[in-house]
Amino acid sequence: MVKINPDRLLSDLHTLRTFGTYKTGVHRPTYSAIDMKARRWLVERMIEAGLKASIDGIGNVIGKSPAPGPKLLLGSHVETQSYGGWLDGAMGVIFAIEIARAVAEDPALQDCGVDAAAWADEEGHYMPFIGSRSYIGDVTEAEIDNIKCKHDGTRLRHALANAGLAGLPRADLETDRYLGFLEAHIEQGPTLESMGQKIGVVTSIVGTWQYEIVAEGIQNHAGTTAMSLRRDAGRALIKLAHSIDQRFTEIAAKRSVWTIGDLRFEPGKPAIVPGRARMLFQFRDSNLHQLASFAAAFDDLVAAVAADDPCSITAKQLSASNPSLMHPRFQDALSTAAEKHVPGLHQRMPSGAGHDAQILASVMPAGMMFIPSIGGISHHWSENSHESDIVIGGQVLACAVGDILANGHT
Amino acid sequence: MVKINPDRLLSDLHTLRTFGTYKTGVHRPTYSAIDMKARRWLVERMIEAGLKASIDGIGNVIGKSPAPGPKLLLGSHVETQSYGGWLDGAMGVIFAIEIARAVAEDPALQDCGVDAAAWADEEGHYMPFIGSRSYIGDVTEAEIDNIKCKHDGTRLRHALANAGLAGLPRADLETDRYLGFLEAHIEQGPTLESMGQKIGVVTSIVGTWQYEIVAEGIQNHAGTTAMSLRRDAGRALIKLAHSIDQRFTEIAAKRSVWTIGDLRFEPGKPAIVPGRARMLFQFRDSNLHQLASFAAAFDDLVAAVAADDPCSITAKQLSASNPSLMHPRFQDALSTAAEKHVPGLHQRMPSGAGHDAQILASVMPAGMMFIPSIGGISHHWSENSHESDIVIGGQVLACAVGDILANGHT
Repeated sequence: MVKINPDRLLSDLHTLRTFGTYKTGVHRPTYSAIDMKARRWLVERMIEAGLKASIDGIGNVIGKSPAPGPKLLLGSHVETQSYGGWLDGAMGVIFAIEIARAVAEDPALQDCGVDAAAWADEEGHYMPFIGSRSYIGDVTEAEIDNIKCKHDGTRLRHALANAGLAGLPRADLETDRYLGFLEAHIEQGPTLESMGQKIGVVTSIVGTWQYEIVAEGIQNHAGTTAMSLRRDAGRALIKLAHSIDQRFTEIAAKRSVWTIGDLRFEPGKPAIVPGRARMLFQFRDSNLHQLASFAAAFDDLVAAVAADDPCSITAKQLSASNPSLMHPRFQDALSTAAEKHVPGLHQRMPSGAGHDAQILASVMPAGMMFIPSIGGISHHWSENSHESDIVIGGQVLACAVGDILANGHT
Repeated sequence: MVKINPDRLLSDLHTLRTFGTYKTGVHRPTYSAIDMKARRWLVERMIEAGLKASIDGIGNVIGKSPAPGPKLLLGSHVETQSYGGWLDGAMGVIFAIEIARAVAEDPALQDCGVDAAAWADEEGHYMPFIGSRSYIGDVTEAEIDNIKCKHDGTRLRHALANAGLAGLPRADLETDRYLGFLEAHIEQGPTLESMGQKIGVVTSIVGTWQYEIVAEGIQNHAGTTAMSLRRDAGRALIKLAHSIDQRFTEIAAKRSVWTIGDLRFEPGKPAIVPGRARMLFQFRDSNLHQLASFAAAFDDLVAAVAADDPCSITAKQLSASNPSLMHPRFQDALSTAAEKHVPGLHQRMPSGAGHDAQILASVMPAGMMFIPSIGGISHHWSENSHESDIVIGGQVLACAVGDILANGHT
């Protein structure tokens, strides 16, 4: 069995935490000086782990095993959300390096190898998943020309040049090199902790469909405009928002989620009937049919409110990602490994958040594994997990990797 | 019968429009250089009309008739909303001056007189109704010390000094001088125009009760937080807003209005469950019992949603003004005058907006009259009324003034 070295793993994880420490979390935006310092440190750690490592033209850090036989690609991302947590992404990258070392040290797997990857900008300071998307051949030079930093508008080209990456080649996918891709991550939600479980085996990464809804009415005096003469854009969206919540509750699947993340009235004054209102709405599910049924219900509700309301209402779909299924063989390997190390304390579950694994899943078998997040907190510097849970997670993933490398897909 | 001079009235109104012209409207904020120029011009016009006129220490322009017999006080305000209309307030002030002249010219009313007033800052660039409130003795020096401009924070004391008003006495109410106060105004709503009517006789100025409602939940990841584990502050206020609209529709009186003028989610991001949400809500009615019944229903709805929702919800009453009844004798005089000049084309109606007449009504009999607003537009530079309707309004008010001066309260 592949055995990780818990001290070595935790030591690397704590060292990575020092690059951009903010309170108990980390502030390490993509392509910042501290982020590039962390990437260069990762290259060194990968080389010490026996991998041939470098940073590519989009900032991906990739370390390749010299092993001639079956190989798996492991990894996650290394930049953080602004003033974010120390484990989100970082843990999956350090697991990859530790398991590359552990596989190399395992006499039973002498021909096999693990490559390690830190994909650039999964968190989307410039563009979510730009690193893993570049790796699978989904990013053109023209797209890179057009991307700007969402915080300050810096051009991606400028940021890449500033980071010393201008002119470097972007790594190509080597389709036949891998049995597949595996990613470990903190759950970022409260499910595992609330059920007292240690491992989540991801069945799929949900699809997210996102809409902007705008109601146009007539701005008017809130004292002198009779109710029957109003075209109140705020009222129209309140009606829509309420009907969405009612209807979606009826038709939701067990793990469906839907969110009205923003609602804004114009001009937003106490004594003025809102002339315009805008709402951001999204829903997520791991089942494409459920997403389609939500979309149809949403369209019906918009049409029904629009038919009944004096305001004009328009809904625009902003994005729609399909659910990514995790490979059944990888799910089984992870469940078997979890049952061995934490019997009964694991479950299969969808991932409600997006991850690089959903990008890699479109070109190779992919699998994903969660460990519990304390209090379910995520995208905040106070995010944390118990070190004992981190070690269990690393060992379970290593065990599953050993199984897949030794036994292949069957 | 008191007869106005339409050309003289319209000429003054158009001259006043030149102080701060903006497109077809006017930008004349209280105490600005152009506003003070307009006030000084008003003093001159009042003096030419035979009144003893001056500006007091808060900016009120008051012109007093030398007549020894019964007198009425007429007026409105002269500053505009920012980039507002040319008639809002201004028309009522010019009516006062024209009717003072017309009464002085009427041989049948030789002992009687009309005083004219332009109350300062009804529009609340610093503090709504500060001029008329000062006049009835409701403003302390300490309050003036604390007031700041709502646009740029300038202290009222500084603005008064800058306008040349520092140290001037504030005019005192002379309780026994008047039979009462009358104000003419544009309707600022679409009711008269939509019914083809020319005169609105105001029965009361509505009371306005205003609330701020805050829901506190927990900010969370919109993908990883199951619906059952959420404390979504936005969802809580959508539920409340919807239940308000349902319930208020059931219990409203014919002229009741209610408005959710603002609703705001924090942080207002598409993929984050809102942790906090805030709503501004107000309702208006001319009947105190209706206001009280709305308030009780609102409290019940807040309690019901709070009992059922995982968020904490708190509602704070920001303000609550009582309805001001217009004096029945003044309503009758206005209706009689309207029936004489535009038979059948007038109605009694409450005022949904606030006016200086509601302040004066607390110390003397008060009456108020509306003329139609084109398209009901208000608080915007495109606000307008037909000149023929302005002239009808001036004549109807003059006729009612003549009636009250000649026949008193009986």
